[in-house]
Amino acid sequence: MTLSIIIIGDEILLGQVADTNSRAIARAFGACGWDIKAIRTVGDNADDIRKAVETSIEESDMVISTGGLGPTKDDITKRVLTEIFGGELREDPAVTENIIRVFELRGLKLNELTRAQALVPTSCRVINNSYGTAPCMWFERSEKAFAALPGVPFETEGIIADGELLDAVKAKFTPDLYFRHASVMVTGISESALAIKLEQFEDSLGEMLHLAYLPSQGLIRLRLDGKGRDKAVLDKAFDLKLAELKSTLGELMIFDGDASAAEILLDALRRRGLTMACAESCTGGNIAHSITRIAGCSDVFSGGVVSYSNDVKTAVLGVDPAIIAQEGAVSEPVVRQMALGVMKATGAEAAVATSGIAGPGGGSAEKPVGTVWMAAAYRKSPDGETVIETKCAHFPGKRDRVIDRATTEALLMLAKMLR
Amino acid sequence: MTLSIIIIGDEILLGQVADTNSRAIARAFGACGWDIKAIRTVGDNADDIRKAVETSIEESDMVISTGGLGPTKDDITKRVLTEIFGGELREDPAVTENIIRVFELRGLKLNELTRAQALVPTSCRVINNSYGTAPCMWFERSEKAFAALPGVPFETEGIIADGELLDAVKAKFTPDLYFRHASVMVTGISESALAIKLEQFEDSLGEMLHLAYLPSQGLIRLRLDGKGRDKAVLDKAFDLKLAELKSTLGELMIFDGDASAAEILLDALRRRGLTMACAESCTGGNIAHSITRIAGCSDVFSGGVVSYSNDVKTAVLGVDPAIIAQEGAVSEPVVRQMALGVMKATGAEAAVATSGIAGPGGGSAEKPVGTVWMAAAYRKSPDGETVIETKCAHFPGKRDRVIDRATTEALLMLAKMLR
Repeated sequence: MTLSIIIIGDEILLGQVADTNSRAIARAFGACGWDIKAIRTVGDNADDIRKAVETSIEESDMVISTGGLGPTKDDITKRVLTEIFGGELREDPAVTENIIRVFELRGLKLNELTRAQALVPTSCRVINNSYGTAPCMWFERSEKAFAALPGVPFETEGIIADGELLDAVKAKFTPDLYFRHASVMVTGISESALAIKLEQFEDSLGEMLHLAYLPSQGLIRLRLDGKGRDKAVLDKAFDLKLAELKSTLGELMIFDGDASAAEILLDALRRRGLTMACAESCTGGNIAHSITRIAGCSDVFSGGVVSYSNDVKTAVLGVDPAIIAQEGAVSEPVVRQMALGVMKATGAEAAVATSGIAGPGGGSAEKPVGTVWMAAAYRKSPDGETVIETKCAHFPGKRDRVIDRATTEALLMLAKMLR
Repeated sequence: MTLSIIIIGDEILLGQVADTNSRAIARAFGACGWDIKAIRTVGDNADDIRKAVETSIEESDMVISTGGLGPTKDDITKRVLTEIFGGELREDPAVTENIIRVFELRGLKLNELTRAQALVPTSCRVINNSYGTAPCMWFERSEKAFAALPGVPFETEGIIADGELLDAVKAKFTPDLYFRHASVMVTGISESALAIKLEQFEDSLGEMLHLAYLPSQGLIRLRLDGKGRDKAVLDKAFDLKLAELKSTLGELMIFDGDASAAEILLDALRRRGLTMACAESCTGGNIAHSITRIAGCSDVFSGGVVSYSNDVKTAVLGVDPAIIAQEGAVSEPVVRQMALGVMKATGAEAAVATSGIAGPGGGSAEKPVGTVWMAAAYRKSPDGETVIETKCAHFPGKRDRVIDRATTEALLMLAKMLR
């Protein structure tokens, strides 16, 4: 069973807005065993939309589009789909009711343009969108199906989570293949060195199984994929090879499963029963944000201090101003004092700290852009000694990347110490 | 001049990794007047890559692909491109030299797999990739050009910024059309109400001009696009209509240009000569991160406190524990004390504070998930009174969205007060 995705919108094509819908759809359908065939992004242009729809329906069993369903003039998806699938636009009272409800919730006054969103082609079945005013539409053409979703990411994600769409998919298609997926997280080795280490393993995988490398900033995710017509045969081969992969990796595997650096650290903290805090200069809140994005982090995360100015480093974290004057804010003694200072200020039992030059300005010959000092510390027992490690790294790339790399590196530094 | 983009990689198709390359390429080429025709995402599969390349070359003047150039077995783009454009794979000494340099910089040992990345088709010209080991390849077929870039985002972004690729593009293609783009940021109105307000204006735009609505979390970006063969005629029409748009918008326009909520606030702070800090509970560092992502923010941003636990609210920000016990952490008096507390702790002259329930857990009938109290404050003069405003909002959607919405709303709240 193959799925093609169409992302509609000039704003995506022009790079003004990032497309996150294709990823959300691919993940949801991939997890149900669908093979994603292609993702096409086209502008709000009738010819391009029509061509993308026809090509996608031809190549795949199911097609999902997002975007172009808004109330404004540049949104033409509904009109084009009515031309393709036939029928005429007619008001759907259930959609009108939903639009009125959404506007009341937002405290806005209904207007004619929004009311026109309740017009839907008679050739479609409406799937409820409780997150916004654009109706989600389901079309069928013989053995194939087409679903048009809104472009606003939280609406599309909400519709997928609600399940009505996936239920319609399950009612229409019966799977003929079984799938397995498993991921492990690896750190401390380059992608190519890892590939050499796993060459024999990969050669032994056979037709049903496949290993994929997904490197990102200091972590490599290895994903084992399996696909087969016989569930028992697939399960046996998959479980055997997954166990072999883990034993081959040994200490290189930092987490069994798919996890971000922050999730790996939260897991390590929970195993040791420790709370943590962070003291951030160059990462500017991104360490705290990476952790607090994860639901339920409050059992081990106390909080943090973004000590962007030297005054805050001194006033809130107690860093010695003489040390800053002597060694500079980007230095070993400063991150050391930041980590210990934030533990003291917040009462947390573990901490990470960063101070660096994210760029583009602020670099020097001695401390070029990308230079980041990091510290990680934890208390061995409630009244016991505090273990602290520090290190300096030089991250290549632009500001965003330096911030992201330093964040990941600091999180993994503490996670490895706690292992 | 039209450009098609091809994103290659199973990891993108499966939704395991977000594609950011298409956006970076679209922005860079859009700014040079290129019309982006389509973006296609395909897996690491020879047939699909071949089909996407042929279709793209047919429909556009220029095609750019990213991905599939890594050292591992699943990366097959180079082999497929050699089949399509002819020639044979041969080692390029300059690429070998670059690979050795990159590995030395990373402190890694060179191996056979990586060395094989120096093999490039004789039908291509190599464009230097100083950010990684995969060579960037430039092919031509009669009037058309094809560039294959690596999939790692910071490498692709670096290659685009370096300019060698854009120079090759300029040498090959001469523009026959002129372009204009301008954006303004609008807040405090729904997309549909704005469209009604601007209906007459849009009807008056004519053939050369087009207005696009790009709504995102509390802000609507309006982009006026112009395209024409006569530069003088285009410029005159564009400038006239842009001025008319701004005067129609009046107070609804919060920023003249394309800017994030954090950029709008930084601009407002600089105009008033104020420094700021943030005190974050439910936004968990995202406000600080949104600000510190912006280069040069340190002139007005002092830092912040992520007071995730109530202990940190009390110990670092001086929030009265009796008030927390009586009113709850998500309450008006608590955000008020947080904002004033972080100004005192950091010495900053303005502040924002948030305390809310991001979900999925922690909600109640009285304070459901999505409830967020916000405060914004600033000192009118060095020894003058402090102005403070508070408000409560209910944001729909999941955890990530509640965090993002509360971040934007808090930033804009202070920006509007400073206006």
